[in-house]
Amino acid sequence: MNDRKFKMGLIGGGGKGFIGRVHVTAATLDREAELVAGAFSSDPNKALSYAVDFGVQSERAYATYEKLLQQEQLLSNSEKVDFVSIATPNHTHAKIAVAALRSGFHVICDKPMTTNLEDAKSLVEVVAETNKVFALTHNYSGYPMVRQAREMIRNGDLGELIAVRVSYKQGWMHGMDTEVIPERGAWKSDPMLNGRAGSLGDVGTHAFHLLRFVTGLIPLSLTCKMSSYSKHHNLDDYGQAIIQTTVGATGSVLWSQVSHGRLNDLTLQVDGTKGALEWHQEDPNRLSYGRFGKPTMTYERHPGAGYTTDSARMACRLPPGHPEAFYEAFANIYRDAYVQMRESDQWSNKSVDRDENLCPTVEDGLEGVMFTHLCLESDSEESSWVPWNL
Amino acid sequence: MNDRKFKMGLIGGGGKGFIGRVHVTAATLDREAELVAGAFSSDPNKALSYAVDFGVQSERAYATYEKLLQQEQLLSNSEKVDFVSIATPNHTHAKIAVAALRSGFHVICDKPMTTNLEDAKSLVEVVAETNKVFALTHNYSGYPMVRQAREMIRNGDLGELIAVRVSYKQGWMHGMDTEVIPERGAWKSDPMLNGRAGSLGDVGTHAFHLLRFVTGLIPLSLTCKMSSYSKHHNLDDYGQAIIQTTVGATGSVLWSQVSHGRLNDLTLQVDGTKGALEWHQEDPNRLSYGRFGKPTMTYERHPGAGYTTDSARMACRLPPGHPEAFYEAFANIYRDAYVQMRESDQWSNKSVDRDENLCPTVEDGLEGVMFTHLCLESDSEESSWVPWNL
Amino acid sequence: MNDRKFKMGLIGGGGKGFIGRVHVTAATLDREAELVAGAFSSDPNKALSYAVDFGVQSERAYATYEKLLQQEQLLSNSEKVDFVSIATPNHTHAKIAVAALRSGFHVICDKPMTTNLEDAKSLVEVVAETNKVFALTHNYSGYPMVRQAREMIRNGDLGELIAVRVSYKQGWMHGMDTEVIPERGAWKSDPMLNGRAGSLGDVGTHAFHLLRFVTGLIPLSLTCKMSSYSKHHNLDDYGQAIIQTTVGATGSVLWSQVSHGRLNDLTLQVDGTKGALEWHQEDPNRLSYGRFGKPTMTYERHPGAGYTTDSARMACRLPPGHPEAFYEAFANIYRDAYVQMRESDQWSNKSVDRDENLCPTVEDGLEGVMFTHLCLESDSEESSWVPWNL
Amino acid sequence: MNDRKFKMGLIGGGGKGFIGRVHVTAATLDREAELVAGAFSSDPNKALSYAVDFGVQSERAYATYEKLLQQEQLLSNSEKVDFVSIATPNHTHAKIAVAALRSGFHVICDKPMTTNLEDAKSLVEVVAETNKVFALTHNYSGYPMVRQAREMIRNGDLGELIAVRVSYKQGWMHGMDTEVIPERGAWKSDPMLNGRAGSLGDVGTHAFHLLRFVTGLIPLSLTCKMSSYSKHHNLDDYGQAIIQTTVGATGSVLWSQVSHGRLNDLTLQVDGTKGALEWHQEDPNRLSYGRFGKPTMTYERHPGAGYTTDSARMACRLPPGHPEAFYEAFANIYRDAYVQMRESDQWSNKSVDRDENLCPTVEDGLEGVMFTHLCLESDSEESSWVPWNL
Repeated sequence: MNDRKFKMGLIGGGGKGFIGRVHVTAATLDREAELVAGAFSSDPNKALSYAVDFGVQSERAYATYEKLLQQEQLLSNSEKVDFVSIATPNHTHAKIAVAALRSGFHVICDKPMTTNLEDAKSLVEVVAETNKVFALTHNYSGYPMVRQAREMIRNGDLGELIAVRVSYKQGWMHGMDTEVIPERGAWKSDPMLNGRAGSLGDVGTHAFHLLRFVTGLIPLSLTCKMSSYSKHHNLDDYGQAIIQTTVGATGSVLWSQVSHGRLNDLTLQVDGTKGALEWHQEDPNRLSYGRFGKPTMTYERHPGAGYTTDSARMACRLPPGHPEAFYEAFANIYRDAYVQMRESDQWSNKSVDRDENLCPTVEDGLEGVMFTHLCLESDSEESSWVPWNL
Repeated sequence: MNDRKFKMGLIGGGGKGFIGRVHVTAATLDREAELVAGAFSSDPNKALSYAVDFGVQSERAYATYEKLLQQEQLLSNSEKVDFVSIATPNHTHAKIAVAALRSGFHVICDKPMTTNLEDAKSLVEVVAETNKVFALTHNYSGYPMVRQAREMIRNGDLGELIAVRVSYKQGWMHGMDTEVIPERGAWKSDPMLNGRAGSLGDVGTHAFHLLRFVTGLIPLSLTCKMSSYSKHHNLDDYGQAIIQTTVGATGSVLWSQVSHGRLNDLTLQVDGTKGALEWHQEDPNRLSYGRFGKPTMTYERHPGAGYTTDSARMACRLPPGHPEAFYEAFANIYRDAYVQMRESDQWSNKSVDRDENLCPTVEDGLEGVMFTHLCLESDSEESSWVPWNL
Repeated sequence: MNDRKFKMGLIGGGGKGFIGRVHVTAATLDREAELVAGAFSSDPNKALSYAVDFGVQSERAYATYEKLLQQEQLLSNSEKVDFVSIATPNHTHAKIAVAALRSGFHVICDKPMTTNLEDAKSLVEVVAETNKVFALTHNYSGYPMVRQAREMIRNGDLGELIAVRVSYKQGWMHGMDTEVIPERGAWKSDPMLNGRAGSLGDVGTHAFHLLRFVTGLIPLSLTCKMSSYSKHHNLDDYGQAIIQTTVGATGSVLWSQVSHGRLNDLTLQVDGTKGALEWHQEDPNRLSYGRFGKPTMTYERHPGAGYTTDSARMACRLPPGHPEAFYEAFANIYRDAYVQMRESDQWSNKSVDRDENLCPTVEDGLEGVMFTHLCLESDSEESSWVPWNL
Repeated sequence: MNDRKFKMGLIGGGGKGFIGRVHVTAATLDREAELVAGAFSSDPNKALSYAVDFGVQSERAYATYEKLLQQEQLLSNSEKVDFVSIATPNHTHAKIAVAALRSGFHVICDKPMTTNLEDAKSLVEVVAETNKVFALTHNYSGYPMVRQAREMIRNGDLGELIAVRVSYKQGWMHGMDTEVIPERGAWKSDPMLNGRAGSLGDVGTHAFHLLRFVTGLIPLSLTCKMSSYSKHHNLDDYGQAIIQTTVGATGSVLWSQVSHGRLNDLTLQVDGTKGALEWHQEDPNRLSYGRFGKPTMTYERHPGAGYTTDSARMACRLPPGHPEAFYEAFANIYRDAYVQMRESDQWSNKSVDRDENLCPTVEDGLEGVMFTHLCLESDSEESSWVPWNL
């Protein structure tokens, strides 16, 4: 453990939602950081009043994110925040991230990164220009067994890839009262605030990132069909995309927020010429590895087993059978970002191998926005195939 | 139990394959029928020599199916076969079925019913004309919990349907030696004998029938994308279709015979506005019923439980917890066919409510062939949407 | 398949119970036998009237088992029954079996074999004396994956055995109306008819046989604690025994018929110095094999996999993923008995290796009765350790 | 969140073991406490050098626990530790806890509380005398679904209890090299340091506490049989106890550290006259609820579902489907202790309802030591029944 702890500022995340607290718990799980400042809401009064929920001293609670960035810059290096975490509605990610980066802060940003391609592309440029760390919380890629899957595929344990299927199913829209504006997340139903992608942006982008992260497959073109079944709003709440990849493997992404009985059912299946993998987010400590004519093997999250890959081992905190879960995976994104921050801020003279750093980047964010963009485009054109163009 | 047992003739089904024996075991499971005659191969010598494997007396073993139909017609009513079961390669189903029906025999036929639309439509006409019973062995619809699912949906337990996903995944193609012609099933790789649909015809049609049987949803149009990953042949071995239905619900059908670790993984998921169901063929005695905010319930195959529907109860032979499986489901198709045969042959004066008889019909067969036809058409036209036209 | 089919007589098994029909279905599943005669109830009128349910001709339906044995003996060899299956209340097994054996018939008998040790020992002698085949339907030993477990242990895949735990849990007693005598199985609550062992005899003996069959461990002594929780009767409905074995391994047997939510939950766990196994009767086609530091492997019932043992392969009828279940396992007991009968009756000149024949014998029956006897003895003496004395 | 954070001192827990880090992560998960001091090993040099691993400043790292207690007492109230967590070998728990309590500090102590009854009884007295908070980390009682089970039973959802079975199985002893003294945990094999109970103390006591916590059943007497199969040491590594309870229900506790393929398999099953429950530590977010003739229901950890009990809801941090696991359960023990500390230290004027506080107490610790004591006694007397005497 390092002497020095990172100082965290949180933008958004106050009130009834849970994601702000998740950011703080994940960021501080390994005691590598502490929350010292925040602008916890877009409503200036709430922004201040929520500070007490987070144990942030009133002098470091700000009415707006602009004030936070402005004031924190004026503090000494040992006092001011090292990074800000952005947990605001989707349409504000881009402008806040740009402002924070330009103010000299590293950024940890919720997904989807932006609500349109232009913002995403600009953000890529600003990250390059400012040379600050930018991490996107595609937290499911933080699970040890997801990283195990990725490394097994890179090691050739599956042979050449044939197909990958990722589905992300929830059912909470059936719990919405269509007469009442929800206390939290109301912006998710407003295309101006949320973007034109409904469940596609909310969960579909996670599924797509998981596909990309684990398989490394590069899209060539895709077709998409979406629907809106809930009375709750007019955005998509069910959809699927088929992806043609550059090497011929087929990708399938399916998302739903109208599936009764599904809580947070993110499922991954990968088929290769030599073997196949399956993983379920709600049973995250196991990974199933099947091969023709051989018994299917259940790989456990296991820091000490011979079959465990390096990246999976690095992502573990506990012995096998002592389950790890959502917080730990989320914290792994932060931990990876801290490695980059240490190098960037010269706390550590260990150079980070970007190829080996598993932390989702601004480029991953751009890919997610491109995926969203193309899904909307294909769906609006009778599910025609649209080319990937990054 | 009735005094009189049906007399069965088997066409094809001898040798290394298992489906002939499955037909006989299923047909006789409840001791309502006995196998008395057969033409067990397209090779006349084998057709005769296989008889001993089935315990059929040599005088009722025939060198060809034509001889079987011809000779059996000459026997007395109490001696001759009541029906023939067709377990031959796909491209021969139509002509054998037509000949058998015209010879006055009921027909139980393997799926896919025919390898092209014309044959399928002719067969529909011949069935109507001869007024004999024709049943197609979409055996997975014989499982009690599949029937439970169907009845729950008809009872409104799921509300309006939103989406249905059926996938059928196997991996055996990875076990094929591409240098050697397989001892059995070689015809499955030959488009002349198998039809142009590879895995689509072999397992995709089962998945489609399950979708239709359980949900009753009627296709409006579909789009399909298929691939051929195995070196084994050039037909599809992986594919998926998205189905637009007349009521707006989305159907998804996925098939694969190149998924390592999958044996016979036929899985059904149905989402409705009030609830959702899930069923797995490899764990057939359970059906999962989920509703938002309520605990997911595991319905067991249970002839005596209050939650069991009539059609599921009728399909049970054993108390709960005493698992039933593949043979019993297959036998239920036969049992349903026997009910129709008894009425048709006036053994019973109980009239069969065709709407309530769950036995797959020649119309179901036509639908399956149409599905295959349209999938091939869409795939060959860049996955464009093609209208359902029955 | 052999030309000649065995002729079966059924004693008991008529009416509301399901076990008589199970015997017939299992006996005839492979079309190696046919039911030709029966005495289907201890009530002479019912004994005759139930014949129609089984498709047995009235001239071969007998009012009593004595008449059946007497009359069938007078028929020609090609007409008379080769064996009788006994599906009567427990206390009658011994006398019927003895009479049948002495009348020259092979016997397939329900478990528990007898309700007391004296009867069991006499029966062992009569079997030896008459030299007829005697098989006990410990049907759970017929499952392919149970046989796989047995053979793996004999092959040393588990090293030296440490412990084996078998539990058999049901919950149906909670469905009994304590005010009403049940239509079927009422005798199970009457110590005169059922024996003094309640659930111990009904399910505990199955669990014990499974332990013995799979592990081959020989008891040295045991301690037992039983209870009666149901208002339904005063016999045990919950109990457990701990078994010290000759090689030091610990055996645990637990039985219950008062566990809500359990249907027919027979579970086996075996620990050895090199590996461990787990199997569940309600998911019978899988066997889990765990080893320290290695991924747990799921062995499937699979006639063609490299890991499948000979005895498991011989017990399969269908390809993997096409589930087999209760009937097939029960039928495997019959199939094994037929092999013995063929040798005994010189239909086949293939000598049966008794050590390799997996069919439960009269000695297994005696062991089961001894287990029951000692459990009752230990429980009545404050769970003191009682020595095994066979 | 409260303004003031608790200050934590850690005794033991440094080096290769993981439990020290678990204590710190759990204690600080909700940012209600911070680690400020420690004596991290019984080896004074290590005690100091490990401080850096925990981010503890060198002036608050102590060579011995005695020094820690002595020096911290001298600090101001706002500086000194509020509580110490004891993560040392078992035989030292008692003396350290007594010293800490007498020095005015609250204590969080690893289980088993002590290695003999006398120490346990003394500790009960010292807690009463000093009136400080004493919590024992029976962390598995911190899982939301364990608390749900407990509350459902208290609410009568299971009717009268019939039986409870808890088993705790691990397999790591098969990974021990018997020639080499392990780098960590070597004391666990030394009866002087570990106590006479091997796996019984290590995992059996957790199982027993879970039984007591969930069911509230009070032992009347017990019988126990233990074995030592590993070559690793001569203490028990496999055992089971049967518990007669005051209300007639039967308790079963089984423990093993020699079961291949088991990681941390703590399983709970409870049978009552109206329903039954099942829970698995390795799948902690689900609880299965079965009732005769009704579908088994899967209760999810779900802060917002109608079926969730208050104590389960209070134990949740995340929405359903976003899995929580080991750390969160461990943290719930700390959270409960903090509630007591706040009252004790008058930070809060909210009085704690001791009956409702779920935090394991010194009395629970005494019960665990009694359980261990009686198991050893029964086992040494041929598994005779020994009376519970608290």
